[in-house]
Amino acid sequence: MTTQPDTSTSTTPLWDEAQRRDTAAPLTASARGFATDGTVHLNGNSLGPPRADLAGELASVVHDQWAPRQVQAWFRDGWLDLPRSIGDKLAALLGAAPGQIVVAGETTSTTLFNALIAACRLRPDRSVLLIEASAFPTDLYIADSVARLLGLRVVTASGEDFDSCLRGNGRHVAAALAAPVDFRTGERGTIGRTAALCHAAGAVSVWDLSHAAGVLPVDLDAADVDLAVGCGYKYLGGGPGAPAFLYLPTRLHQEVDLPLAGWHGHARPFDMTRTFEPAAGIDRARTGTPPLLSLVALNHALDPLLDVGVPALYSRSQQLSEFFLECLERSRPGLLEGLVSPRDPDRRGGHLALRVPDAERVEEALAERGVLIDSRPPDLLRFAFAPLYVTYEQVRRAAQDLCDVLEGGQ
Amino acid sequence: MTTQPDTSTSTTPLWDEAQRRDTAAPLTASARGFATDGTVHLNGNSLGPPRADLAGELASVVHDQWAPRQVQAWFRDGWLDLPRSIGDKLAALLGAAPGQIVVAGETTSTTLFNALIAACRLRPDRSVLLIEASAFPTDLYIADSVARLLGLRVVTASGEDFDSCLRGNGRHVAAALAAPVDFRTGERGTIGRTAALCHAAGAVSVWDLSHAAGVLPVDLDAADVDLAVGCGYKYLGGGPGAPAFLYLPTRLHQEVDLPLAGWHGHARPFDMTRTFEPAAGIDRARTGTPPLLSLVALNHALDPLLDVGVPALYSRSQQLSEFFLECLERSRPGLLEGLVSPRDPDRRGGHLALRVPDAERVEEALAERGVLIDSRPPDLLRFAFAPLYVTYEQVRRAAQDLCDVLEGGQ
Repeated sequence: MTTQPDTSTSTTPLWDEAQRRDTAAPLTASARGFATDGTVHLNGNSLGPPRADLAGELASVVHDQWAPRQVQAWFRDGWLDLPRSIGDKLAALLGAAPGQIVVAGETTSTTLFNALIAACRLRPDRSVLLIEASAFPTDLYIADSVARLLGLRVVTASGEDFDSCLRGNGRHVAAALAAPVDFRTGERGTIGRTAALCHAAGAVSVWDLSHAAGVLPVDLDAADVDLAVGCGYKYLGGGPGAPAFLYLPTRLHQEVDLPLAGWHGHARPFDMTRTFEPAAGIDRARTGTPPLLSLVALNHALDPLLDVGVPALYSRSQQLSEFFLECLERSRPGLLEGLVSPRDPDRRGGHLALRVPDAERVEEALAERGVLIDSRPPDLLRFAFAPLYVTYEQVRRAAQDLCDVLEGGQ
Repeated sequence: MTTQPDTSTSTTPLWDEAQRRDTAAPLTASARGFATDGTVHLNGNSLGPPRADLAGELASVVHDQWAPRQVQAWFRDGWLDLPRSIGDKLAALLGAAPGQIVVAGETTSTTLFNALIAACRLRPDRSVLLIEASAFPTDLYIADSVARLLGLRVVTASGEDFDSCLRGNGRHVAAALAAPVDFRTGERGTIGRTAALCHAAGAVSVWDLSHAAGVLPVDLDAADVDLAVGCGYKYLGGGPGAPAFLYLPTRLHQEVDLPLAGWHGHARPFDMTRTFEPAAGIDRARTGTPPLLSLVALNHALDPLLDVGVPALYSRSQQLSEFFLECLERSRPGLLEGLVSPRDPDRRGGHLALRVPDAERVEEALAERGVLIDSRPPDLLRFAFAPLYVTYEQVRRAAQDLCDVLEGGQ
């Protein structure tokens, strides 16, 4: 027996198994609604495929709303409500009661900036902004920028050190920024535990949900999270650069002081008064006039996610990633030594990270075969298992192509 | 002779005149490229009509770029360059050399926030943020917010008082925010003179070009303006909530310190390093991942403006507004007593403001007749003469409908 199984013989039972699972799993049908063109999309943690009817939705907004009703469409076609109504859809996906999430129309970086300043202002006598060392780079840049504006000190820490900082020096921490999924390794953190640590220290907890929203159960209300932001273009499927969302729980609405005080956040925006008076509820977190076409695309993307529901989405994502590991195990078990993500699916978000030599070249070779993944320098491959449009057969094919590419590269 | 001419007899020569001018004026042809559906659009200072082929452009981006190339489309289809390439188109419309304008993908309010903080940071020892009392409300809110963050004092002043503040207390003024067109009255200011006053006082001049861009000559480089922002959805035609632009002249690139430091403004965004290092040139003013579909619509809207060029755009806008006044003068001269805008067309931007009783009701009655304008409480009607799609015959019709509505209301 060889240590490296022959992939050509081992694919047959896996192919059968993929077919069987695709036939049995009811979610697979939803893949038909996406414009995937036979490509395997395992980079939904970056930008998933569009729904096939998106262009029609955009054309309808342009020709049936904008063209005939012009600026009145903001009122008559519900455009003005979209930041909040999209927010309520997101609330259903993120375990929040309605009226606590808004899509103001800014980028994720800017929305985080707004949230962090608001968070730190809730603790004006404290001097530290704590952030996970493994945070997505833009979160680090924004934390630095906010700290400089407010005269705070940024402390970065990982894992136990992060917790220790809250336990030991918690009384100095104004706000702590964390993510429920590590964007590199896919490792899942425990929101409730970290939020509780923050509260025990009297610090405000702020979350970047970009790699969790739309795939992972995130019970914002139950976890007693203070503020949270996330992008619209990863698992949520809102398309390139889809605007970010901001979660601001009702208990903080009166108390919070947001720096991006644009006219859409005013209590009576069309009175055009001299002085800013924040709107009631979550509307106070709106800013300027939002980019409508991008809001429309995000809104349109959320419906199939809501139809399926987060528990089923997460469960399917886990099953897909487990099947991927099973395929690798049977075809090329040595590869799993490079697995950076936790082996326990309950400790993972929606993606797997695998260490291989020359990751970027592997990513390119897979793209040539119609399998889209992404890489992070120098040696990390990331495979995302977005539950709405990835099938078992695609997972099998991706695993086989990965083995073939690595084989060819030896 | 009656003081109120009979509109039914006076329309005939005006109708002839409108036909003659529409036949003679070459710009009229461009109106055919817009989805105007027979409606008269005199609110292009708010939201103009879409180009008829916009939905096709969006569908092409969705199906020919996003669907087949996914995240790679950011590189292969030029998406990543759009914030700067759209900026260069805007530079051509605003009298700026290339590489000085960027569309980062934020709302106008947020872009102004970013610009004002950067401006005030250039003068760290000064305590006043000066702003025109007639500024658009969101500018006032944002100025207040910035002043609170930086510990500055906001001073609002109009006309001579604004100038006096710069002359008398100029040494305290960190930054002065002004607009080349008053959003209510349409009165045109003199950018060069105000910018020179700012410079003489050592203050940084910041401009809100929202009501000027795409219709008025604005020679940013020649006027030695420091920073400027503007929205994409008025005369620029970028559609509902089109993202804002930021002008930052080359001479300030090294010196400026922008607070919205997102990863797209990093020198090497895809290296994902811990520390923010601003990109060379105007790219440093980018923020997070921009809302692509809204960028595509803005980009698409700019081409016909560039084809015509600002001098011809402004000249035609002036001729249209002059013809409107001529129509009113011949049909109902008493109305002109309510003209709030300067009578000299060279002292106006792209719109006229007229004081009438019960302005909102008049706006609604005109909308029912297919003439779209806007009103500002309590008694101001605004008529915008966007040069790309408004014809003389539409102007004549709008004037007649206005007279009819006011007649019926007596």
